[in-house]
Amino acid sequence: MAKLKVLTERELKNIIPLDVEAVQCVESAFRALATKAVAMPPILRLDIPEYRGEVDVKTAYVPGLDGFAVKISPGFFDNPKIGLRSTNGMMVLLSSKTGLVQAIMLDNGYLTDVRTAAAGAVAANYLARPKASVAAILGAGVQARLQLQALTLVRPISEVRLWARNLSKAKAVAQELSNQLGIVVTACSEPREAVAGSHVVVTATPANEPIFSADWLEPGQHVTAVGSDAEHKNEIDPAAIARADLYVPDSLKQTMRLGELHHAIATKAVASSVLFPELGDIVSGAKLGRVNQGQITIADLTGTGIQDTAIATFAFARAEAAGAGIVFDS
Amino acid sequence: MAKLKVLTERELKNIIPLDVEAVQCVESAFRALATKAVAMPPILRLDIPEYRGEVDVKTAYVPGLDGFAVKISPGFFDNPKIGLRSTNGMMVLLSSKTGLVQAIMLDNGYLTDVRTAAAGAVAANYLARPKASVAAILGAGVQARLQLQALTLVRPISEVRLWARNLSKAKAVAQELSNQLGIVVTACSEPREAVAGSHVVVTATPANEPIFSADWLEPGQHVTAVGSDAEHKNEIDPAAIARADLYVPDSLKQTMRLGELHHAIATKAVASSVLFPELGDIVSGAKLGRVNQGQITIADLTGTGIQDTAIATFAFARAEAAGAGIVFDS
Repeated sequence: MAKLKVLTERELKNIIPLDVEAVQCVESAFRALATKAVAMPPILRLDIPEYRGEVDVKTAYVPGLDGFAVKISPGFFDNPKIGLRSTNGMMVLLSSKTGLVQAIMLDNGYLTDVRTAAAGAVAANYLARPKASVAAILGAGVQARLQLQALTLVRPISEVRLWARNLSKAKAVAQELSNQLGIVVTACSEPREAVAGSHVVVTATPANEPIFSADWLEPGQHVTAVGSDAEHKNEIDPAAIARADLYVPDSLKQTMRLGELHHAIATKAVASSVLFPELGDIVSGAKLGRVNQGQITIADLTGTGIQDTAIATFAFARAEAAGAGIVFDS
Repeated sequence: MAKLKVLTERELKNIIPLDVEAVQCVESAFRALATKAVAMPPILRLDIPEYRGEVDVKTAYVPGLDGFAVKISPGFFDNPKIGLRSTNGMMVLLSSKTGLVQAIMLDNGYLTDVRTAAAGAVAANYLARPKASVAAILGAGVQARLQLQALTLVRPISEVRLWARNLSKAKAVAQELSNQLGIVVTACSEPREAVAGSHVVVTATPANEPIFSADWLEPGQHVTAVGSDAEHKNEIDPAAIARADLYVPDSLKQTMRLGELHHAIATKAVASSVLFPELGDIVSGAKLGRVNQGQITIADLTGTGIQDTAIATFAFARAEAAGAGIVFDS
């Protein structure tokens, strides 16, 4: 018999808002990835083509942390037809010392949403110009909204252009974000219109073909792509990776397999031998991030197990402090 | 918000005893593995050497089943020093159609124990002589005991010899099994003593070096090895694999990587190109099992995700029928 804690999405939303501390938590995770003997095995992936379903399982161990997360992330893309979210999932936090389950976080993907948005903020914080104030958001889903919210935590964003394939959805989300964040958010009918003149661009769509052309890149722009977490997904024109002055993956091993880089290598826009600096290398100071106002930078975020371990450990500590959750005898 | 069921070890022990139906459940899983488009990705493995810990995550999808399991199995080998079991774990059952979590089974490894023992019974049922009545059990842990119990479900076992490194433990367990199963179980001080004259031999130890010599094999003997679920584990002399008339892995891909076969290939006792029939091929009738009384057969069981999916689906159906478990809003 062992005791463990079960936490629901509602409780986790209360104790882990997307705030500066969540961003710092994920920033620490990237620093650890570059400086500690982190163990992060390749993602376990199961496909269920009959139901347009896929499940990813991610994990990572960070020396010094009491726990490590195993995250189960299903994505079933016919779910919206029956009124369900495509993505769901949960995290299990296990003790690093005994392997006993410490907590089950029934977050329905909420913690993933937060740690993904927080990674966007970390990338922008190290790669976007310090005074970047104009942002383009391509996408109008949960992650697109959270990316903008996260961006406002690290840059003085005052003007936002939002594009989505569905213009009426883009308009509705623009209005909603405008009210929520107290800044001007305008819906655009073309992605190029949103990108032109923006200091920071975030792509957060499920696109399978580029929605961002290399020709659109402007000196000084920073682009964060967060949509590509599977081999067939692709948001950024491969030529853009080659044209950027600095390309930064969250995990080079992963982006070579399933990020934007993967497509750039496949189309021979970039050689597979280039050792791009990872986000953790830049956070830790081992490699340089942006060095001048004119550089074009691209961050390619595919999502890493270490972010899950970091956010789950953080959530468990907050839950313990708040007395949240139901204790179970297993 | 979605509803899911949490089941504890105690409830699962009540609804899923190791019986003929559990064996049939696992037999069906092996049949499906050979006859259906089962998706079974490689095991996700995380090592935490600081604490002699390891975690395996297994999954498999079987077309036609409503759910699929993701199993998290930690093994932390310093746990006994602080009074905890080395192995623990839990299973998550997800809907094959929506990816929603249907149940969380806080089984502490119990369902794994049952499905592993059941696989031993399936192997013996197809590979041991029909009238096999004398069994040797090498090992005295939980799995060694369950293997004997499972064996009695498929063969008329009337005499058992049990060996373990610790003779006093072997004696205690022999007495216990004798009382439980109502058959004569004798403790042996040497493995060879247990093996000589036995019709069926089961090895269920954490050995890193062979405890069973190829020279001991007798015509007609069937050997099931269940202990080797990691690269460094090894119970059977590699020469025994070469000497057997029929070698049967649960999953050839897995035993080439972490089963007894792996060591036989490494020592060049067996070529890596041999396409051995898998247990599922024999269960489904696609390949032949034992064809005469004199054959020497060896089954190499490393544990497969499809067994987890089968037993978890079975447990969930029984829990629903019995109204067991606590329903949670996630």
